[in-house]
Amino acid sequence: MVTIAVIGSGAVGSYYGAMLSRAGHDVRFLMRRDLAAVRARGLDIRSHRGDFRLDDVRCFGSAEEIGMVDWVLCALKTTALSEARGLIGPCLGRNTRVLALMNGLGVEEQFGEWMQPGHVFGGMAFVCLNRGEPGIVHHLDYGRLTIGHLGDEAAELEELRRLLAAAGIEVVVASRLRRARWEKLCWNIPFNGLSAAAGGVGTRTILQHPGLRAMAERAMREVVAVANADLATLGRSDFLDDAAVVAAMFGQTETMGDYRTSMTIDYQLGQPLEVDAILGAPLRRAAELRVDVPTMAALHALVDSADQRMRSGR
Amino acid sequence: MVTIAVIGSGAVGSYYGAMLSRAGHDVRFLMRRDLAAVRARGLDIRSHRGDFRLDDVRCFGSAEEIGMVDWVLCALKTTALSEARGLIGPCLGRNTRVLALMNGLGVEEQFGEWMQPGHVFGGMAFVCLNRGEPGIVHHLDYGRLTIGHLGDEAAELEELRRLLAAAGIEVVVASRLRRARWEKLCWNIPFNGLSAAAGGVGTRTILQHPGLRAMAERAMREVVAVANADLATLGRSDFLDDAAVVAAMFGQTETMGDYRTSMTIDYQLGQPLEVDAILGAPLRRAAELRVDVPTMAALHALVDSADQRMRSGR
Repeated sequence: MVTIAVIGSGAVGSYYGAMLSRAGHDVRFLMRRDLAAVRARGLDIRSHRGDFRLDDVRCFGSAEEIGMVDWVLCALKTTALSEARGLIGPCLGRNTRVLALMNGLGVEEQFGEWMQPGHVFGGMAFVCLNRGEPGIVHHLDYGRLTIGHLGDEAAELEELRRLLAAAGIEVVVASRLRRARWEKLCWNIPFNGLSAAAGGVGTRTILQHPGLRAMAERAMREVVAVANADLATLGRSDFLDDAAVVAAMFGQTETMGDYRTSMTIDYQLGQPLEVDAILGAPLRRAAELRVDVPTMAALHALVDSADQRMRSGR
Repeated sequence: MVTIAVIGSGAVGSYYGAMLSRAGHDVRFLMRRDLAAVRARGLDIRSHRGDFRLDDVRCFGSAEEIGMVDWVLCALKTTALSEARGLIGPCLGRNTRVLALMNGLGVEEQFGEWMQPGHVFGGMAFVCLNRGEPGIVHHLDYGRLTIGHLGDEAAELEELRRLLAAAGIEVVVASRLRRARWEKLCWNIPFNGLSAAAGGVGTRTILQHPGLRAMAERAMREVVAVANADLATLGRSDFLDDAAVVAAMFGQTETMGDYRTSMTIDYQLGQPLEVDAILGAPLRRAAELRVDVPTMAALHALVDSADQRMRSGR
């Protein structure tokens, strides 16, 4: 049994935390919206792979109450990245590892400046989750977690892989974290970006409108171009192949139904959008590398202005 | 005195028709929304250059009642282009000239298939107008009309120029209609397109958001590239200069305040957007000419999908 702090108990944190808790670990959830409901009624996972329920959940309103743990699973939204340091700080001991289950580029590098970089891991969830009523998480599809280590040290990843796999989580180990981050962005930039830019639509709207679909594909190819330029600066030669990426990502998306991306949900709820981690940071990297990315730039501009309008209440 | 039929009495048709009527011509308006109000109370032009009012307006509910005229001023929205032939037909005699005061590419060429091409003229209004209550048009700024002839025959244009100028309308004669259309699109594609794509915003939002502004400029440069490729196929060498176009168009737009484009107004009112004439036709021309226009394509996709959502009532 290991002690695990789940910092940020949205759909992703709650779901993976619940899987680990069900496997017998001491999982402590930092909760905000759902704190009272989960204390009163437990945590409900409504999953196509079988519903389950945690009756006695250790949940807290502050990281100080959680205290030091073996593992921090940080599943904050990147819009709260500036608060992350203060929220994980009380959970960190000399040997605490942090798994950043967050979107976008540069998150692990940021964590690596706050703590020992060798203790920083990144996780990319390929999963369709939606929050329901407080205390309820809907698991609609998939569930795979791709994990990587900030220093790309394979030995470091083995413990994490076993911890997750033993809890029934499908795990893929990425030998190169940075490359895996880019692969994830190959989906997130076009589909999250376009779902918000087109006014809060689902994936089916994008796939079925020829112009939006072409725009998504173009954005994806631009991401591949930036990714490969970025990997080249790191001395890599494990480049992404844009035709293969497009075929795989569109193929998977076809199977998702009319999936509402996290940005679409945030857009519809009027919540802050993860503009910078998903679109801003990759766009800045493209500019540094002088890769021409007109469609990424368009998506960033449109989503950023939508986010500003929402924040200003217009 | 000449007889003039104004087909399509929105803000543009009403304003220029009123100017011609005030100059003493027999102007007959085809009206829909405002018919009863104008019959009852006349037509009010609230202009920064001086308000004026027509008390006794000849307005009709059908083109048949208007009958044959010397000039047809066709100011329909391009979303009604398929109805234009039926609406102007009853007004056409052997010597009737038609001035198409409509947006987008290919309108005059379409009219030229329906009637003698030598009688077809195009007009591009550079004017800030908004419809107010029925019977009221707000003239906010500018008013210049650039006119061209489908066959680019200078002699044909002189009569029209005099007619308009004598009515107090600032007229610019374009020696090349097709080039003038493209010049107009250099503004309409970025600013109409983006104002709708970004959720129904005014020009100030576009100018003040660095990403949207860069996107507008990029779209404008793409339009110039298509325009020049199109003009080259016509054997022209009077190419547009993208730096000069950008400087002029952005400079003018800075002076407009937070102008709501026609597409923004349509978007906010949930009315059909002029997607095809402003964005679709130029995009098809770009594809024919193999000019790469990612930003135009993005704008078309986003505005087209917004238009479809509105029409389907979602």
